[in-house]
Amino acid sequence: MEKKIGFIGLGSMGLNMAKNLVEQGYHLQVYNRTGSKADALDQKSITKCKTPAEAAEGVQAVITMLADDDAVKEVVLGENGILKSLQRNSVHISMSTISPDTVAELAKKHDETGSRYVAAPVFGRPEAAAAKKIWICISGSQQAKDIAKPILECLGQGIHDFGEKANGANVVKIAGNFMIMASLEMMAEAYTMAEKNGLDRLKVAEFFGSTLFSAQIFQNYGKTIANKQYMPVGFSAKLGLKDAQLAFKLSQQSETPMPFVSTIHGRLLSAVAKGWSETDWAEAISRGVTEDAGV
Amino acid sequence: MEKKIGFIGLGSMGLNMAKNLVEQGYHLQVYNRTGSKADALDQKSITKCKTPAEAAEGVQAVITMLADDDAVKEVVLGENGILKSLQRNSVHISMSTISPDTVAELAKKHDETGSRYVAAPVFGRPEAAAAKKIWICISGSQQAKDIAKPILECLGQGIHDFGEKANGANVVKIAGNFMIMASLEMMAEAYTMAEKNGLDRLKVAEFFGSTLFSAQIFQNYGKTIANKQYMPVGFSAKLGLKDAQLAFKLSQQSETPMPFVSTIHGRLLSAVAKGWSETDWAEAISRGVTEDAGV
Amino acid sequence: MEKKIGFIGLGSMGLNMAKNLVEQGYHLQVYNRTGSKADALDQKSITKCKTPAEAAEGVQAVITMLADDDAVKEVVLGENGILKSLQRNSVHISMSTISPDTVAELAKKHDETGSRYVAAPVFGRPEAAAAKKIWICISGSQQAKDIAKPILECLGQGIHDFGEKANGANVVKIAGNFMIMASLEMMAEAYTMAEKNGLDRLKVAEFFGSTLFSAQIFQNYGKTIANKQYMPVGFSAKLGLKDAQLAFKLSQQSETPMPFVSTIHGRLLSAVAKGWSETDWAEAISRGVTEDAGV
Amino acid sequence: MEKKIGFIGLGSMGLNMAKNLVEQGYHLQVYNRTGSKADALDQKSITKCKTPAEAAEGVQAVITMLADDDAVKEVVLGENGILKSLQRNSVHISMSTISPDTVAELAKKHDETGSRYVAAPVFGRPEAAAAKKIWICISGSQQAKDIAKPILECLGQGIHDFGEKANGANVVKIAGNFMIMASLEMMAEAYTMAEKNGLDRLKVAEFFGSTLFSAQIFQNYGKTIANKQYMPVGFSAKLGLKDAQLAFKLSQQSETPMPFVSTIHGRLLSAVAKGWSETDWAEAISRGVTEDAGV
Repeated sequence: MEKKIGFIGLGSMGLNMAKNLVEQGYHLQVYNRTGSKADALDQKSITKCKTPAEAAEGVQAVITMLADDDAVKEVVLGENGILKSLQRNSVHISMSTISPDTVAELAKKHDETGSRYVAAPVFGRPEAAAAKKIWICISGSQQAKDIAKPILECLGQGIHDFGEKANGANVVKIAGNFMIMASLEMMAEAYTMAEKNGLDRLKVAEFFGSTLFSAQIFQNYGKTIANKQYMPVGFSAKLGLKDAQLAFKLSQQSETPMPFVSTIHGRLLSAVAKGWSETDWAEAISRGVTEDAGV
Repeated sequence: MEKKIGFIGLGSMGLNMAKNLVEQGYHLQVYNRTGSKADALDQKSITKCKTPAEAAEGVQAVITMLADDDAVKEVVLGENGILKSLQRNSVHISMSTISPDTVAELAKKHDETGSRYVAAPVFGRPEAAAAKKIWICISGSQQAKDIAKPILECLGQGIHDFGEKANGANVVKIAGNFMIMASLEMMAEAYTMAEKNGLDRLKVAEFFGSTLFSAQIFQNYGKTIANKQYMPVGFSAKLGLKDAQLAFKLSQQSETPMPFVSTIHGRLLSAVAKGWSETDWAEAISRGVTEDAGV
Repeated sequence: MEKKIGFIGLGSMGLNMAKNLVEQGYHLQVYNRTGSKADALDQKSITKCKTPAEAAEGVQAVITMLADDDAVKEVVLGENGILKSLQRNSVHISMSTISPDTVAELAKKHDETGSRYVAAPVFGRPEAAAAKKIWICISGSQQAKDIAKPILECLGQGIHDFGEKANGANVVKIAGNFMIMASLEMMAEAYTMAEKNGLDRLKVAEFFGSTLFSAQIFQNYGKTIANKQYMPVGFSAKLGLKDAQLAFKLSQQSETPMPFVSTIHGRLLSAVAKGWSETDWAEAISRGVTEDAGV
Repeated sequence: MEKKIGFIGLGSMGLNMAKNLVEQGYHLQVYNRTGSKADALDQKSITKCKTPAEAAEGVQAVITMLADDDAVKEVVLGENGILKSLQRNSVHISMSTISPDTVAELAKKHDETGSRYVAAPVFGRPEAAAAKKIWICISGSQQAKDIAKPILECLGQGIHDFGEKANGANVVKIAGNFMIMASLEMMAEAYTMAEKNGLDRLKVAEFFGSTLFSAQIFQNYGKTIANKQYMPVGFSAKLGLKDAQLAFKLSQQSETPMPFVSTIHGRLLSAVAKGWSETDWAEAISRGVTEDAGV
């Protein structure tokens, strides 16, 4: 049956994506470290697996949606990793936010065993994943992307192709997270300065969010930062710092001085040093700005 | 006749705005340093004046749209300035991008002579002014704004009120120009890093402009920066530097450290030092980034 | 009698300098806003004056050592200012730390009245002034400097000539204060990083102060910063911020991007915003660094 | 005979150090990748060895002075590395500039085999090594340092002890190189600003180098930067960038935001991107500043 695929990683993003695939008629061979997470899925449409290798067995494609580089490496290269069972020409659709270096290393390992790696990192929160509103960036060999695309089309509101180099999409993902962080800093600086000049932060944020900067980032985070209401935590300062470090590393490796990356990195490093690791990254950045301004 | 107002400053912005007012049935008492600019207006609907004072005579409102602080000061406070003729309770609608300090000083002078100052700086290029698509920020006393609003409604796609303090709208204008410049730097850094990692700048810019950053700034300038095609010049580096200096000064006066302002200021200062004063601000910022990266 | 000169400004620096001049046989026509300050001087060697103009009367040279630009302007240009009485070719030796713009303006006024301006700002604290250990930078016309030099030789351990342009010495003074502030930041960053890596701040500071960085700045302030013992206040954060602003302005006017100036300016602006205006500038900078590091 | 030790690494630093040891009566078991370098030493006082292991055989101490982390790792852990032959309680005196992480790893390996690691990085150029004017920082167990000290005393003008943690001295070495780079930036900014204000760069540099900043760094590099005469190359921009990266990494690991490190890192990254890798680090930094200022 051709609509059977592997699915590894049932965190808040992964679970919502798995539900959408099931809804579209896919049968999933699922694996998750904490097995009980799979209980939330329609049991007729899934097969629970004991190892990543089992989830990748006999399918043309296996999706991974995991926390970080180490988790992906373990699932791919570990003793019971998917490389042990993935068939020749089958495709690993790797959707986690990981470093381009790790991607290059993993893509090479897939090549050596005859399977293929498609990078498919996403932009969007769990709610967006549930609503099929995430944006997906892909890169990898054309043949592999052709297999991945119909599957990915069930998950988001658009697939954006960044070429044949395995880790191209991951560079875009890191660039995007940098641009979000820089937008947070920019708004925090502007709205704090406005406040200290006697203006209403929220009015200023609403003006920009509805005119020149009428994009999601400025509308949603604009409100958050203007109101200084940062709960619930969507993405932690600690993870933000990790992404700022990835951006810094790319800047370094590609010999591209990026002063805004340095500022953002320092801001989040300070947040973590001050004990704000688990706050939302918008709070970490915004409180840094307001405390520096004595507010 | 109540629809007669004064209009001073027929530059590329002012002329388009004057045309729209004429179209809406206003009769304009116009003054411009170079008188011939008024030839482009319907002659039946205007009265050419020899001085600012003449343009402000007998009207309830006079609009000024001028190049900089000095020009506005001259038109208001000069020997034949509008304060000489402006009636008690008449309103000066001041639409130029000028410093909050100058506004405070001018508002005080109006108060002393019994007339009123309304700040009404705008966001948008001359084409936007022609198409009534500019955004207008206002601040000033409620009574004065009530007189200004019906006139301003003929000019843009929305009036955003920032309170009774005379220069509130100017603070917003400067904050907005800072946010635009920071966006230019952010894009230049991200797209150059992407390029040096083997990606197509334009594809990256189009992705962000159509998804997370689907706002004008990122769409229009995104293309400009991605393609490195900066002509024609919309807003010069020299004027950008002036605005960065205004932002820096506000940051200083309000004791709000703004590291992104410092970066942007240094970037534009370097551009001017290198002789790029007359390039577009997007070019000045973007070339600074690419040259630093050895591209 | 040729050893009679005017002396205006008996603050902690000025008083020590005046004592040294008296000791060298000078008779001083002194003026100070708070007249009682002159009681600390040998009464036979001074004549107390009621106005700056009186202090400058009939002498070939008058020294001013005042708090800021406004104070110097008042003493020179005010109703009873020294320009009212200063003879043709007499010299005003202006030793305060003031902006090059103010110097240019004052030098022009002196030219117009036939007297001469010599800039002679100094490096050193009141103790150094008492011990004749200050360093003096001068600039101005050669003729004027020839008159000033023998007098200045009684005050410090060296006179450094920076040319004929009136405000050259003031540029050097501002550059020097910038270099001191940058050294404070540099040490604060290095010693805090060393501390967080388990090292003893003081040992590290003593090592650098006795080897590669064996200069006063690194020895004295090195100890201060290493020990986090900032009392008594030698030079306040507020005055430091003023000097950082002068450096920023020079950077701007001369089109020289100076990123270290931006960092230092932001650091001191934040210190003032947080209410640390009256702490020593070393404390303001060092606490900024340690708080950012969560120490 | 107790004055026999191993010596590995006869680069420009190492060779000068080896000569000094021979002069003090030491017999050296030398190893160098390019064996002919040993020809410059008194042949009666040395034994040429074919491997690092041979050089470390039967001695109480072996010195290494190598290019980078990889070279040291190879010499210690390689197939014929010194761990293969180093006796129980014998000491490895490691004088290269390497990362604290590498030191921690190597120290652990020594512990496991019963030998001991002493970190002894130095400040100073080859000429200083020849003249016994280098400064030596050490860290490691007390017992091991007691063995190392009499040997090191033949090499420099002072030994500075930074405790028992193996890599403490390396943290100081990196902090010191950061402080040197920050001093270069500071001088380049100040002297360029002075130049653009009409002053003589060299006069300004000489003033500071002989007064407030009368330390080697400011005297020697001050002249270099003031004169813009950067040849011969003492320490390349590429190596400077490597050290800036080490400083950045330490800043990151110890959660200490260091904005000056970010600026310096960006400056050197840009220099390398522009193709200036092999210029002196002073040139790389100084030209970055002057080009930004359009000089």
